Amino acid sequence: MTVTKYPAKENLVKVAKNLGLDEGVLFFKGDIIKERHDTDVELEFRQESNFYYITGYNEPNAYAMYDLKTHKLTLIVYNMPEDNIAWLGKPLTESELLAQYDVDEIRSSDDLVKVLNGSNASTLHTLRKEDVPAGVYLTVDTTRLADALVNARIYKSAYEIEHMRKINHISSNAHIECMKRAKHCKNETELEAIFRYETWRFGARFQSYTPIVAAGTAAATLHYTRNNRLFAKDRSQLCLLDCGAELDCYASDITRTIPLSGKFEGDAKILYEIVLDMTNQALAAVKPGAEWEDIHRLALRVGAEGLQRAGVLRQEYSIEEMTRHHVPNLFFTCGVGHMIGLDVHDVGGFPDGVERFKEPGIRYLRMRRPLEVGFVVTVEPGIYFTELMLSKTKKNPELAKFIDWDVLESRFQPLGGVRIEDCVVVTEDGHDNLTIVPKEIAEIEALVA
Amino acid sequence: MTVTKYPAKENLVKVAKNLGLDEGVLFFKGDIIKERHDTDVELEFRQESNFYYITGYNEPNAYAMYDLKTHKLTLIVYNMPEDNIAWLGKPLTESELLAQYDVDEIRSSDDLVKVLNGSNASTLHTLRKEDVPAGVYLTVDTTRLADALVNARIYKSAYEIEHMRKINHISSNAHIECMKRAKHCKNETELEAIFRYETWRFGARFQSYTPIVAAGTAAATLHYTRNNRLFAKDRSQLCLLDCGAELDCYASDITRTIPLSGKFEGDAKILYEIVLDMTNQALAAVKPGAEWEDIHRLALRVGAEGLQRAGVLRQEYSIEEMTRHHVPNLFFTCGVGHMIGLDVHDVGGFPDGVERFKEPGIRYLRMRRPLEVGFVVTVEPGIYFTELMLSKTKKNPELAKFIDWDVLESRFQPLGGVRIEDCVVVTEDGHDNLTIVPKEIAEIEALVA
Repeated sequence: MTVTKYPAKENLVKVAKNLGLDEGVLFFKGDIIKERHDTDVELEFRQESNFYYITGYNEPNAYAMYDLKTHKLTLIVYNMPEDNIAWLGKPLTESELLAQYDVDEIRSSDDLVKVLNGSNASTLHTLRKEDVPAGVYLTVDTTRLADALVNARIYKSAYEIEHMRKINHISSNAHIECMKRAKHCKNETELEAIFRYETWRFGARFQSYTPIVAAGTAAATLHYTRNNRLFAKDRSQLCLLDCGAELDCYASDITRTIPLSGKFEGDAKILYEIVLDMTNQALAAVKPGAEWEDIHRLALRVGAEGLQRAGVLRQEYSIEEMTRHHVPNLFFTCGVGHMIGLDVHDVGGFPDGVERFKEPGIRYLRMRRPLEVGFVVTVEPGIYFTELMLSKTKKNPELAKFIDWDVLESRFQPLGGVRIEDCVVVTEDGHDNLTIVPKEIAEIEALVA
Repeated sequence: MTVTKYPAKENLVKVAKNLGLDEGVLFFKGDIIKERHDTDVELEFRQESNFYYITGYNEPNAYAMYDLKTHKLTLIVYNMPEDNIAWLGKPLTESELLAQYDVDEIRSSDDLVKVLNGSNASTLHTLRKEDVPAGVYLTVDTTRLADALVNARIYKSAYEIEHMRKINHISSNAHIECMKRAKHCKNETELEAIFRYETWRFGARFQSYTPIVAAGTAAATLHYTRNNRLFAKDRSQLCLLDCGAELDCYASDITRTIPLSGKFEGDAKILYEIVLDMTNQALAAVKPGAEWEDIHRLALRVGAEGLQRAGVLRQEYSIEEMTRHHVPNLFFTCGVGHMIGLDVHDVGGFPDGVERFKEPGIRYLRMRRPLEVGFVVTVEPGIYFTELMLSKTKKNPELAKFIDWDVLESRFQPLGGVRIEDCVVVTEDGHDNLTIVPKEIAEIEALVA
């Protein structure tokens, strides 16, 4: 590949097609620098995702205008006061900007109103009315652009897929480094530091989300981010690592669960194998046309069968009956995955008119639509033993009867939980897995050992 | 030391004394979780500094009330919905909170209005009127609390000094690791990654500011934070590292400039020695009663003398004459240092009634007051060759005559700049240096080699 510019115009063509208009301008406001509270501590700048999508420009205080009739994209950059240059460095010149970005024209933010009023269009489509500066006399329409953007962003372009492969590989290698060095770490913090280091040094300046490094029972907390506990001295714990870095605004999201001793033993092995089975079956079901909800329910069923074999769910009840009572969902508390792209929980999970889930156990599923070629999704089944939920269930005789509390509490609950998560692209034939971290037991044991 | 709780009450006693009131309540609102743009990507939570100062509590959605008459401190914590517990984990119980924090009473945020109205005071002192919830019938006064806080925060307590020593040592050791590994790094990003790793793994989850890792001419940009350039293949560059991590909301701020070859050679050595001289003389001047402005001017004079010896400033003019024309300031463009504490540029630099500087060269000095025992300040002289400023000077015959442009442009400007920065506590006898990174030439060369 010799792509050097982010293909902003290609993305805009998709957005424009979704709008179906042959006249008007699209107007976008990029993000500004923000400070922490009332101090001068600047938060690190990260461009707003839609703005990045239509410009590839990752600097503050910019605007963009796209003319639907002429297809001209104008990037309106901040006119930095001379006083700031000693502190921040010289901004790129017009010709440097044109060479680096897929835009047709560069203007200064000082001319923003003039640029907008200078278009021959009558309507300005934008996301937020308050972004439009005073003095602009075009009619402002905020009703159409958001949907057009979402329905472009859900289909990842070849460029986006290769870029997401790159950050997935960086994050994958960081997971592998964590596995290799886990035995020498005495706490969760050290593993998190390794993951951040192994992604940062390749230019990934942001994590897609706060990493989760959860040993033992901490893994039962789905978004545990304290990452500050000591590992048990006997190294008997599993440790769940849900970590994915971001590169040039594109996210990765990967989870592995590893044995801190180097060996999956006893019940830990049983539990891991159940989740691995859920993962492999869910991945095999990812193909165009598959209903996301069905993949969730498939993983749920595989998990329930595994928990029944393991003796956590009682043999005398059928999976169907337990499922009617939402019992398996007590252990698979989050959804099977979500769209991923410029944001880790990317746009487009619920198309217009599609209802959110209300049913227990599935209500955290972040997507309800059939898969299409070009979607990038995470597949992340898991089994968790969440204390609060289980103690409430135990007090409810109608539900408690399905569970062997002895087996659960003495053997499995101390394990916390297991999650395995890959990022995959939906292709004509099924899927293309962007994540390259091993997940078979023997492979992980070889790395951690 | 066996301090286990952050001494919030001790801090509040100082604040109350500054207020000089024997009745009323102080009310504080802690920070909330914020998301990135309109996504669900949560920014990592960092407590607002004043709230931390009076509670030591670093969790979101909390409030605090302090009764000036009874000296009772009430921490009002978020009542987490049960649904969130599976995602975020169980919050601490009342008795756990009382054991962990230096507070007298724990209440739930559900009772916020009741707690406030339940005080016997008539006046509520707070920082921002909008923080006070509807339904509170106390008189709100926002005119006094801010000053009382500033005038407490400027005098660091023994606890604060020891804590700042700890994070200074963590950051110091990270600087030393960067020095040791610099030779194997091919770009600025890798050095930044090492610094972040070596602080993160000891629990420092935030940097006090975005690190600056600036090789060669990048060092002339005072707040260069791109940190993404390749090092010159011949390793002839200096690299400036201005990096300091934060621990439990307290900042560190340290700069070192190192030779990527392992040796300070030729003009780089001359330049470094000038800045080292500025630093040593400025540090020696740090003592109670010293005017901060005078320390800045002392460093400036030492720098000017050095630049004259080096041949950058012409011999035929006196330092006094050049100083009257603000010529030395062209090379020492930022201030000699600032207060540091809960924020990297901490409160209190300009007491009420003290004017900001307008004079060129010193107008970026962040403090104008005599030093007092208990202040913690950075001392950070530097010499920079800032292209824009120099090219403007060259065009001005009245100023250009003071500079030997040949010497400057061919020998020194390509070096970019040098800064050296330590954090020190003002003591009865002078100062106590919290930073323990070597800065002598032989010491740095031994580490980088």
